[in-house]
Amino acid sequence: MNDKAPWLTYRPELKVLDCTVRDGGLINKHQFDDAFVKAVYRTCAEAGLDYMEIGYKNSRDQFPSDEFGCWKYCDEEDMRRIVGDHDKSQLKLSAMADAGKSDWRKQIIPQSDSVLSMIRVAFYDHQLSEAIEMIHHAHEMGYEVCANLMAVTLVGETELDQVLESVRESPAGTMVIVDSFGHLFREQVDRLVKRYQEAMAGTGKDVGMHAHNNLQLAFANTIEAIILGVNRVDGTMFGMGRGAGNCHTELLVSFLRNPKFKLRPVLKLLQEQMLPMREKVEWGALVPFNITGKYNLHPRSAIEWRAGETPDDFVAFFDKIIADV
Amino acid sequence: MNDKAPWLTYRPELKVLDCTVRDGGLINKHQFDDAFVKAVYRTCAEAGLDYMEIGYKNSRDQFPSDEFGCWKYCDEEDMRRIVGDHDKSQLKLSAMADAGKSDWRKQIIPQSDSVLSMIRVAFYDHQLSEAIEMIHHAHEMGYEVCANLMAVTLVGETELDQVLESVRESPAGTMVIVDSFGHLFREQVDRLVKRYQEAMAGTGKDVGMHAHNNLQLAFANTIEAIILGVNRVDGTMFGMGRGAGNCHTELLVSFLRNPKFKLRPVLKLLQEQMLPMREKVEWGALVPFNITGKYNLHPRSAIEWRAGETPDDFVAFFDKIIADV
Repeated sequence: MNDKAPWLTYRPELKVLDCTVRDGGLINKHQFDDAFVKAVYRTCAEAGLDYMEIGYKNSRDQFPSDEFGCWKYCDEEDMRRIVGDHDKSQLKLSAMADAGKSDWRKQIIPQSDSVLSMIRVAFYDHQLSEAIEMIHHAHEMGYEVCANLMAVTLVGETELDQVLESVRESPAGTMVIVDSFGHLFREQVDRLVKRYQEAMAGTGKDVGMHAHNNLQLAFANTIEAIILGVNRVDGTMFGMGRGAGNCHTELLVSFLRNPKFKLRPVLKLLQEQMLPMREKVEWGALVPFNITGKYNLHPRSAIEWRAGETPDDFVAFFDKIIADV
Repeated sequence: MNDKAPWLTYRPELKVLDCTVRDGGLINKHQFDDAFVKAVYRTCAEAGLDYMEIGYKNSRDQFPSDEFGCWKYCDEEDMRRIVGDHDKSQLKLSAMADAGKSDWRKQIIPQSDSVLSMIRVAFYDHQLSEAIEMIHHAHEMGYEVCANLMAVTLVGETELDQVLESVRESPAGTMVIVDSFGHLFREQVDRLVKRYQEAMAGTGKDVGMHAHNNLQLAFANTIEAIILGVNRVDGTMFGMGRGAGNCHTELLVSFLRNPKFKLRPVLKLLQEQMLPMREKVEWGALVPFNITGKYNLHPRSAIEWRAGETPDDFVAFFDKIIADV
């Protein structure tokens, strides 16, 4: 610690990804209308963000298209309807493919034929082998690739070492810390960042941070990761994401000192698109999500509770969780 | 940094103060009905909190009683109506007195005649001399005393040194870091905590943390202070407090590992009292409060905006703030 104020400066290599459509789509089965997705796309570009994650590359067999919107699959024609003559040299587009839920050999086509620049491979530790195959495939197709080990707070020490070693040897460019349950706080973030960084040391690979806001710590944990040198961070507009939602992109943009980031277009999106969206679907650091975050649980029980008959009976939800854990 | 998990243990000397009625009362001119204040009091006791701040000891001349509720003055009979035969050995009661707004020589009576155990003296740096007189008076009357230098993010380095030196030499038992505008983030909290701790070193005085939630960082900054050794922390139920509100007591209680802290009674209060209260008055990390926090501004402009005709026109508010700063 010195007496200077490093927060007045910035690292040009720090990149922001907005995954509103991808993570937010988990609330509404990716049934966004085109106007919304176009507005998010325009906003990401105007705000100077580095990446926009526009959805999943997941399987139509597992997620039938009469139930899910097109951002569950990110077919080329759907993306082009939104982004037109997309300039890949500015805002880059990303899609996520889940191990075990994606026809990735078919769905991930050559990058030169796609508007996408990046594929993020999401996987649980037991899916490591498929994830490594997916990473190789996406890399061979010409994409930048991220490895997103989900729910890291459930992963044992030994398993984490194995995942990090395998990703280190893979062509993935970034390994992302994913706090799916919003369970982490500062000291735990520190240990994970250092561990991921040490595992990737000397490879030129980046470490990333994807936080959830169950304990109102998504932004703080993202800042913490940035302070420790993490150069890939995720946000969503107004925090839209499953359950408690994510780190708010507007807070990140407002905090970062790179003059290319602009807050005003983000604020415009918040009032024009996100407030009406929040009337239709629910997310945020509500009490039931505080509770699942505290107990390191998947948010599904809280989501079900909020959709039930007594969404505001926090004590009954707490008693149910305590009885179950 | 070691490999152990200190977050599984606790420091018995870490004390939690709930200031829902005091700070939350700034939203509704302290016009709470008795049932609400009684419920907060009962909850603080059941949750194992150490202190409840029940209001201000401020002047009836400046704050007429036809406009403000009784918690602006904390007269003995009003407090006794709520707390009855209060047991000072368990939950301790506190009131805040503002320099420049309090008839403190009259209002702060001997502690042996009061249900209060603690007085917190709130002051801006230019009011230091009166604050020191108030601290001496409250100490002589038998109270534990805290010194709360407000809006520390506006205080110059030289002025802060003077305040810390004067408080060090005073009979105050605790010096509180008060981030009135919710502007601080992690690295700034670190520097302030270390500075306050160094200034108080060897005196046995504690350092405290009072955070506001403009940037969704109140809980994170409070955790940060705790990690660095701060032993006095403030929260409010559901975060109720002026503007963006405060660190949520329920998050603190849930986070701290001292088994005496109980979350369940707090959850009960949230659903029975705080949800209906939030329907009547507004607080929280809303976008206009994000913006005043970012620019280190008093929240009053955002409070006025939210009460105006276009509360959700975030862009217009942003443009106005940018034009003014």
